[in-house]
Amino acid sequence: MDTDLRFMSRALQLAWRGLGYTAPNPAVGALLVKDGRVIGEGYHHRAGEAHAEVAAIESATESVRGATLYCTLEPCCHEGPAKRTPPCTRRIIAEGIARVVVASLDPNPEVDGRGLQALRNAGVAVSLGPLTGEASRLNEAFAAAVRLKRPFVHLKAAQTLDGYLAAGSGDSRWITDGAARAEAHRLRAISDAVLVGAGTVRHDDPALTVRHVRGRQPLRVVLGGRRALPEDARLFTDEFAACTIVYRPAAAEVDVDLDDLLSDLRQRGVTSLLVEGGSRVLSSFLARGLWDKFSLFFGPQILGGGISTVCGLGIDSIDKALELKELTVEPIGSGFVVRGYRDPEALFGKPVEAGTEGVHRCSDHGRPSGVEVDCVYGNR
Amino acid sequence: MDTDLRFMSRALQLAWRGLGYTAPNPAVGALLVKDGRVIGEGYHHRAGEAHAEVAAIESATESVRGATLYCTLEPCCHEGPAKRTPPCTRRIIAEGIARVVVASLDPNPEVDGRGLQALRNAGVAVSLGPLTGEASRLNEAFAAAVRLKRPFVHLKAAQTLDGYLAAGSGDSRWITDGAARAEAHRLRAISDAVLVGAGTVRHDDPALTVRHVRGRQPLRVVLGGRRALPEDARLFTDEFAACTIVYRPAAAEVDVDLDDLLSDLRQRGVTSLLVEGGSRVLSSFLARGLWDKFSLFFGPQILGGGISTVCGLGIDSIDKALELKELTVEPIGSGFVVRGYRDPEALFGKPVEAGTEGVHRCSDHGRPSGVEVDCVYGNR
Repeated sequence: MDTDLRFMSRALQLAWRGLGYTAPNPAVGALLVKDGRVIGEGYHHRAGEAHAEVAAIESATESVRGATLYCTLEPCCHEGPAKRTPPCTRRIIAEGIARVVVASLDPNPEVDGRGLQALRNAGVAVSLGPLTGEASRLNEAFAAAVRLKRPFVHLKAAQTLDGYLAAGSGDSRWITDGAARAEAHRLRAISDAVLVGAGTVRHDDPALTVRHVRGRQPLRVVLGGRRALPEDARLFTDEFAACTIVYRPAAAEVDVDLDDLLSDLRQRGVTSLLVEGGSRVLSSFLARGLWDKFSLFFGPQILGGGISTVCGLGIDSIDKALELKELTVEPIGSGFVVRGYRDPEALFGKPVEAGTEGVHRCSDHGRPSGVEVDCVYGNR
Repeated sequence: MDTDLRFMSRALQLAWRGLGYTAPNPAVGALLVKDGRVIGEGYHHRAGEAHAEVAAIESATESVRGATLYCTLEPCCHEGPAKRTPPCTRRIIAEGIARVVVASLDPNPEVDGRGLQALRNAGVAVSLGPLTGEASRLNEAFAAAVRLKRPFVHLKAAQTLDGYLAAGSGDSRWITDGAARAEAHRLRAISDAVLVGAGTVRHDDPALTVRHVRGRQPLRVVLGGRRALPEDARLFTDEFAACTIVYRPAAAEVDVDLDDLLSDLRQRGVTSLLVEGGSRVLSSFLARGLWDKFSLFFGPQILGGGISTVCGLGIDSIDKALELKELTVEPIGSGFVVRGYRDPEALFGKPVEAGTEGVHRCSDHGRPSGVEVDCVYGNR
């Protein structure tokens, strides 16, 4: 295997460890290599702690002078009152690192490329890629924050092969098995907030906790209607009751305005929202175009009728259908999971040619200033 | 890789070449190996021609004495008035072949194992496996003929992610792309007959021909209703018009009896039937339990409404849902295909331990006597 690819794959593995803990920063991994040997590794653990590059340098088992640094994201190069850590480029230059390979540029259109430029100006060899696509998709929520200025909206549903999330009776236990549910809990753990509709609260009384994997508890959001919600629901009575918020429509309206909801969640520091259903809620986000990714877990069943996962989009021909882009499919337990994006170019930009990079002002890793750290991060 | 596995994989590759041409015989591949070198290869081309074992022996580049024969199916050991070829076991013994490895036993419960027993009695070393499951599933239609005494019923549909085979307007072009349609044509080419309902003929005017891959033209079957079919439909006017048959319900009935239909097709020499839709036809076969395999081609779309692939099964809870067993999922073009069996044990028997085999009367490779070779095979 190509050497750069091998080491960058490892850096990406390291980055994954931070995923779900670094918001509003991206997850980043870094690796230091000298004479073909790994001499240091690190990743960004959480906002306010060392960036991956610095963590790798500080873990080094020998002098990093002349080493190559592999980093999944372009190193930061700026400072300012809102920035908690000094610029990584300065440290990289001071340590005498000879070469820096980054998988992806910082996506902020005002800043991407300046980190690399600062390094190049100091005589450090720089290159972009491999694994540019993988590294940018790892930080899909960060990309939404920077490019779309709203939380990343990830729809999730579990359905039969013929598109029903429950039988007509409402029965949905169990369409998917333990392996799929563990993966669904992993999605919760890497999301800042999880949302369900009032109908789901009434019918399923979900806990929306992270039980089948280790991970942090996201904020729990209920998209309420005009009817009262059951006061004894788990979301309002369990140990995380303080981490549940309910949005209700304004008096004159029928439904909560989803733009307002996303704005408010963003103000609360939510960078990623997992929408778990039911049918009406999923369909509302789809109909409004307010979604970025859909993870559809399929069980092995054919029902022939029931509650459709999606309804009422008013689409009357195939060429007007919504489409999942960059679709992937992966077996899981007795079924499989299909994942796709609504508009990868809007999130990740046009694919970048390896070896080229823009030259702009450098990155602050997308951290909005003045973010309140609330109960979303309380049990990290 | 294990030596037996490597050679048997190659034998299985050879067997695939005959698939779709050998009915009512199974597709079989064989390989001769001496001192670790392949010295002969063969497969069964079509009923009446040499069996794979004999084809391999006759292709050998040197003496086969002392060689090992790899064969995807147990060699035949019987003769009789309906049998067109002499027993392979006799030839194997006469040639002085030292060892025979078979992937699967002949599934006919009255005969499986006697081929191996005949070889063992003559001092030939025999073993069963590897790739027993793969070899038996290759001949799924043959298995249905032997164990279920009816054609193998393979349901096929192309649908959106949310389970619609067309928009409400009837529009279905195109849910899947060229790669999926080529695979669907491959399914036609390995089926003896293809069936659609009258509604599909009226609405889509399908040709049901094999265009996107090389292969033979199957018999075309229309499941008619009380209404007349359009006389100018392609099925009745194109070059294969003589290969189209229509089943109509008896005067007093609403629907064609599917058991009668399968019996009649079996009489015509059909061992495998591909049911291509529409919704009502697929649902009828599912509701009656008259299906063996389902291949569901998914496009990347979400429609939110339209014509459901399956309807009216009257199932009101998840645990009563129909289930695809041995489910596999494979990316294809911009979508993916999901395949599964209704009841693999009914078709293929209980999984056999490698190294064991039953001892019964030997096999005729399942060829029903007196089969009429009609236009199904006309353009081979």
